[in-house]
Amino acid sequence: MNPVEIIVKKRDGNILSSEEIKYMIDGIVDKSIPDYQASSFLMAIYFKGMTENETIDLTRSMEESGYVYDLSKIDGIKIDKHSTGGVGDKTSLVLGPILAALGYKVCKMSGRGLGHTGGTIDKLHSIDGFDTNISFDKFINEVNEIGLSIIGQSKDLVPADKLLYELRDVTGTVESIPLIASSIMSKKLALGTDLIYLDVKVGNGAFMKDLDSAKALANLMVKIGNAFNKKVFATLTNMDEPLGLAIGNSLEVIEAINTLNGNGPSDLFELCLDMSKEVLMSSGVYEDDAKDMVLKVIKDGSALNKLIEMVKYQGGDTECIKNPNKFKKSLYVYEYRSKNKGYIKHIDSYKLGLMSSKLGGGRIKIDDVIDYSVGIVLNKKVSDYVENKDLLFTIHYNDIDKLNNILKELDEIYEIGDEKVNKKLILDTIY
Amino acid sequence: MNPVEIIVKKRDGNILSSEEIKYMIDGIVDKSIPDYQASSFLMAIYFKGMTENETIDLTRSMEESGYVYDLSKIDGIKIDKHSTGGVGDKTSLVLGPILAALGYKVCKMSGRGLGHTGGTIDKLHSIDGFDTNISFDKFINEVNEIGLSIIGQSKDLVPADKLLYELRDVTGTVESIPLIASSIMSKKLALGTDLIYLDVKVGNGAFMKDLDSAKALANLMVKIGNAFNKKVFATLTNMDEPLGLAIGNSLEVIEAINTLNGNGPSDLFELCLDMSKEVLMSSGVYEDDAKDMVLKVIKDGSALNKLIEMVKYQGGDTECIKNPNKFKKSLYVYEYRSKNKGYIKHIDSYKLGLMSSKLGGGRIKIDDVIDYSVGIVLNKKVSDYVENKDLLFTIHYNDIDKLNNILKELDEIYEIGDEKVNKKLILDTIY
Repeated sequence: MNPVEIIVKKRDGNILSSEEIKYMIDGIVDKSIPDYQASSFLMAIYFKGMTENETIDLTRSMEESGYVYDLSKIDGIKIDKHSTGGVGDKTSLVLGPILAALGYKVCKMSGRGLGHTGGTIDKLHSIDGFDTNISFDKFINEVNEIGLSIIGQSKDLVPADKLLYELRDVTGTVESIPLIASSIMSKKLALGTDLIYLDVKVGNGAFMKDLDSAKALANLMVKIGNAFNKKVFATLTNMDEPLGLAIGNSLEVIEAINTLNGNGPSDLFELCLDMSKEVLMSSGVYEDDAKDMVLKVIKDGSALNKLIEMVKYQGGDTECIKNPNKFKKSLYVYEYRSKNKGYIKHIDSYKLGLMSSKLGGGRIKIDDVIDYSVGIVLNKKVSDYVENKDLLFTIHYNDIDKLNNILKELDEIYEIGDEKVNKKLILDTIY
Repeated sequence: MNPVEIIVKKRDGNILSSEEIKYMIDGIVDKSIPDYQASSFLMAIYFKGMTENETIDLTRSMEESGYVYDLSKIDGIKIDKHSTGGVGDKTSLVLGPILAALGYKVCKMSGRGLGHTGGTIDKLHSIDGFDTNISFDKFINEVNEIGLSIIGQSKDLVPADKLLYELRDVTGTVESIPLIASSIMSKKLALGTDLIYLDVKVGNGAFMKDLDSAKALANLMVKIGNAFNKKVFATLTNMDEPLGLAIGNSLEVIEAINTLNGNGPSDLFELCLDMSKEVLMSSGVYEDDAKDMVLKVIKDGSALNKLIEMVKYQGGDTECIKNPNKFKKSLYVYEYRSKNKGYIKHIDSYKLGLMSSKLGGGRIKIDDVIDYSVGIVLNKKVSDYVENKDLLFTIHYNDIDKLNNILKELDEIYEIGDEKVNKKLILDTIY
């Protein structure tokens, strides 16, 4: 086999064999295929796509490029959850403890945030002392004992994905459904839980801007999972406004704690409830019972307790979980008020996510250092009515220069109209 | 500007500005843009194409990447000639001397052969002592004194093309009309003659397999030339069979000499006559007069004399030009005879070109050493009638292993049918 022939075959719209795909991925990982051939191969895939079977082969070759984990020492139903990335998305911090409290085993290796979206690992690091770099043995023990562990991605997890992702990022080949699907699923399959819950975000604040491509991605990922004999659910959720009210690391952890205390924003609570129900129903529990069971673990504090146990196990300060007022606060706040009245028509979540990053809450470049206390808390969401001068959002900041840097953008965040718009959070669920 | 944004802009089918194209080419040449971005950019151009203006901008940025020559010290009408590459194409060795004998100034920097096509420089090297690496001053003097010089491409001539071509070759991005047009024209324009004669080969033995793409390429190159205020002609010629009868370096030089002596194969003679007529007519000479003038410089020996003068000026052995029997011959010949009777329907010139390379007459890899005396001489051409056991072609070889290596392919070269097929050499001329 020869890389140029394989590139040309894909370029001309032909279907690659398993062997050809494996040859390319192995060669990219062992560096026998240079980056310039990898990138023209990726661009050919961008244009010509891949069939379902090609994408399954690609995912398998990527999965096998690194360490394939063995979770057999964990008793019970092992669940992983992944979001394609949104703004204000702290779902894992709520859903994980709920599922653990319901007796499931939640195993999650998570990434760091980049660009306008946050990462669960960064959010957890806003808890003093929290260690996301524990050994795999300790991870297994933690899941067995508590039912929940969230750690950072090991560098042994799908090295092919790291190489391909870095290359895609600088060669204009990010937005390709087979490349996105194989990137996500290779990592989920290498970890190897029984059930994989995918949250595919759709809209202005997400990588998938329209429902059709989000559906195509979700369907493809479910089919890849099935080819590996894994149960995969995908929920398509609206990212035309941020999820919940808080954007920023400790601000989002506080909101997750509030939600586990039964006092969270309705959309975040609804999403976590729906996802938990799907998991329960897949185990034969009826819809109404499922809802009651989730409400119970929130009401009796057992879900929140799972978060406290995880934080304790991973060396974090549990006092701030018990009393979120103890989180370190930003030095200053800036209130932004409405300049007219009417119904909120749209909230630019992409810009909000980027603003939070620019305040220090995320990374613009890969090696930026994060300021955990900064961010934005919304006061109004889409379809809410506002009067002139009503508070729309509060910016939490530590550096006046960084605030000044974003001030000119603030008028562009909220769009207000005359009519109340309908909105829907969960757009579809794919099995 | 940022390379990823420019790659994405082209990927999404948008038109790049002159500045964006210059930024990419300058960055590729000074290595500030890495190969992996260059190759995904090339693949995006492969898929999305370029407008005429973009291709002109690309050609200009490439041309300016190296040394732009000054031919102002040459008196008279300066002419360059380029073939897109075919099998048995020794046109430059006949046309150059004819035009020089007619008073034109023929300035040619030529490439080496690779793959199935030969290169004029390699053919000239089959003449003992011939130096294609003379100084630019000597080149200028030679053209002034004799009216003709053919030298190798300086490494200062369009370094961007060398980089891009090497990358295209290994990333599946060779067959792109704007990339081919800018590659050829940037070099022709950097040399900077008044008139550029392009011979675009079409068919099985050429890079352009069909007339439509060859026409598109020719039209584009003519328009690029016009944008630089240069007179450009393009002839589209049939490469569904080799040009003339000889394939291989010294065999082709001998055939060129025979043609200049008035004893060449009719198709080669016809092509050189037609091209010379076009040049003469562009100077206001009528068609009939033009034909007579060309026939005259052949008849009176002045065209052949120009070849002898050039060979002498560049240190080559003129005795073998005067008496082609003095060329070193291959040790052995192998005759291939027809296995049935009928009219020759097709001759696979691609395979013949590759066979000549495999015998040692060309390069399969860039650093292969050439055996000048080997090659193939055809005895029959398309539309000729053959009886069973008639001689079809003779293989000239030095190495029995190399002959054995191609023996199994010989039955696939000629296709014989019941009806006489019509053929046409010159398919179109584009001004």
